[in-house]
Amino acid sequence: MIKIFIYIFAVIGLIMSGCDVQEEPQRQTEFGLVIHGGAGGITRDGFTPEQDAAYREALSVALQAGYDILKNGGSSLDAVEVAIRTMEDDSLFNAGRGAVFTSEGTNELDASIMDGKTLNAGAVAGVKRIKNPITLARLVMEESRHVLMAREGAEAFGLHYGIETVPEEYFFTQRRWRALQRAREREAVDDSRGTVGAVALDKEGNLTAGTSTGGMNNKRFGRIGDVPVIGAGTYANNKTCAVSATGHGEYFIRSVVAHDISALMEYKGMPLREAAEHVVAEKLPDLGGYGGIIAIDRFGNIAMPFTTAGMHRGYVLDDGEIVVKLYGDE
Amino acid sequence: MIKIFIYIFAVIGLIMSGCDVQEEPQRQTEFGLVIHGGAGGITRDGFTPEQDAAYREALSVALQAGYDILKNGGSSLDAVEVAIRTMEDDSLFNAGRGAVFTSEGTNELDASIMDGKTLNAGAVAGVKRIKNPITLARLVMEESRHVLMAREGAEAFGLHYGIETVPEEYFFTQRRWRALQRAREREAVDDSRGTVGAVALDKEGNLTAGTSTGGMNNKRFGRIGDVPVIGAGTYANNKTCAVSATGHGEYFIRSVVAHDISALMEYKGMPLREAAEHVVAEKLPDLGGYGGIIAIDRFGNIAMPFTTAGMHRGYVLDDGEIVVKLYGDE
Repeated sequence: MIKIFIYIFAVIGLIMSGCDVQEEPQRQTEFGLVIHGGAGGITRDGFTPEQDAAYREALSVALQAGYDILKNGGSSLDAVEVAIRTMEDDSLFNAGRGAVFTSEGTNELDASIMDGKTLNAGAVAGVKRIKNPITLARLVMEESRHVLMAREGAEAFGLHYGIETVPEEYFFTQRRWRALQRAREREAVDDSRGTVGAVALDKEGNLTAGTSTGGMNNKRFGRIGDVPVIGAGTYANNKTCAVSATGHGEYFIRSVVAHDISALMEYKGMPLREAAEHVVAEKLPDLGGYGGIIAIDRFGNIAMPFTTAGMHRGYVLDDGEIVVKLYGDE
Repeated sequence: MIKIFIYIFAVIGLIMSGCDVQEEPQRQTEFGLVIHGGAGGITRDGFTPEQDAAYREALSVALQAGYDILKNGGSSLDAVEVAIRTMEDDSLFNAGRGAVFTSEGTNELDASIMDGKTLNAGAVAGVKRIKNPITLARLVMEESRHVLMAREGAEAFGLHYGIETVPEEYFFTQRRWRALQRAREREAVDDSRGTVGAVALDKEGNLTAGTSTGGMNNKRFGRIGDVPVIGAGTYANNKTCAVSATGHGEYFIRSVVAHDISALMEYKGMPLREAAEHVVAEKLPDLGGYGGIIAIDRFGNIAMPFTTAGMHRGYVLDDGEIVVKLYGDE
């Protein structure tokens, strides 16, 4: 009789394990910041030692700037904004100063930010004279009744609030201009690597995600990629995680990548890393898409999957150790 | 001993019922089309009998046009496009001809379409001279390597493919011009009811969703709402459902409404109606958002939840009966 009851409980246990009954995980870190500087055909062979060092230094500077804010109890919003501003100001990345050119030889910048606590969000598309598009995206989030604003309308809104503008020549860099000429000659599109993004968890437990880009090299004017599309390139929700993406934007829009990772966690109980891997390494390639994402969940777990040769990336947790990687595993 | 085994099986059954084990539902109809003409403060008292009849007639005409295609084995893409074009050409709706005005007195139109079979999608934002923005969205989906194109760039792309353009005056209607003046005087924003959308299931089992709008009355120029944001205002996936939304777009972007309904079905096994109700009537109001959606799933089940007083809406299934409603339940 006792044996039979043991058997019953074993059967119950076996069946229960197939249900979504999970233990609540522990917080892994008091706070954390993960950043990316774009995914693409990034290999050690393609970089001089000087270039390798320059990218590592630039990523470290951005991480340190965000870390200082989080360490001192600042918000994940502030940390994400400052980390992205730092990369926008560095011509190494395809965002802000180092933006790629459209097929018409102009620079059209996109950015977005999302607050996981309130699910408030702001995004701008196709701005041409804003030094730091991520700051304009935050202004749209905090000061307008809109979420997404484009081109002259977005700029006019920012000017009203005194945002810093620059002449269009500010975005002229020889490297990106040559990339446009090469793309025109080949009539092909570069991978335009260098989109930047940041996700952070602060001491209060609030998550933020942000992304900024110059878009796709040689893109048709008027093309908007995944970056200003909330749910595609950027998503944050305190219930789950914060995600910023980089890659072939069209596929990220069609896959609603950032929100899909959050939905797999919320509705299917998938851990962050599994959800991120599933979307980036299985679902996106099924459509023909490639790229990568960075993410941090509400417990401070992080994920940085990508399907390109490399992705400029790094993170810092509450121990203050800055970790930066460029290629496959280093 | 037999009793104990019965007991074991009873326990197993009880526990299994708590898991997501569901029977595969049956196809409800060979094909189907659901449309909306916007959600808002729509009540019987606010309409003359003539207005009531005009809206019912306009929705019926759009449904009949789509039905004729589906009945003859046409694709859900064609049915959605034609149903939306019909409403764009009718000045009753805030899409195409009857678009509302921006705060600057211009008309800026948005539209999107998504193919649930391929997850391909096309969207346009802020176009000013395109007679049928839904057709331009489809052109972006089928003929460009991009998903989302804005303003002059989107128009230039369409012109290259010979899309029908109209002078900006085509979009001038006395009704919408007065609505702008009223909004300016009150410094408030109308609900801008009249966004149109369509979702369809064809005989092949393919789902399509599409949406078209003039945006928000008195909107700042450059504002982009949820309509061209794939995942927010429009989403289709043959695995789950096709969704088109109407309402306060900013909340629909932040909630990634259309993709969220699909994700609840795919990852949580929720039936269409439950998922749609949950997102529209529970999650959106938690943020302060209101509006409605129409949806059809791969079995032909439909849902049309809304949290406003009314929503212009209707559907037709394979029996050919056209059902049209404007207010709460009629």
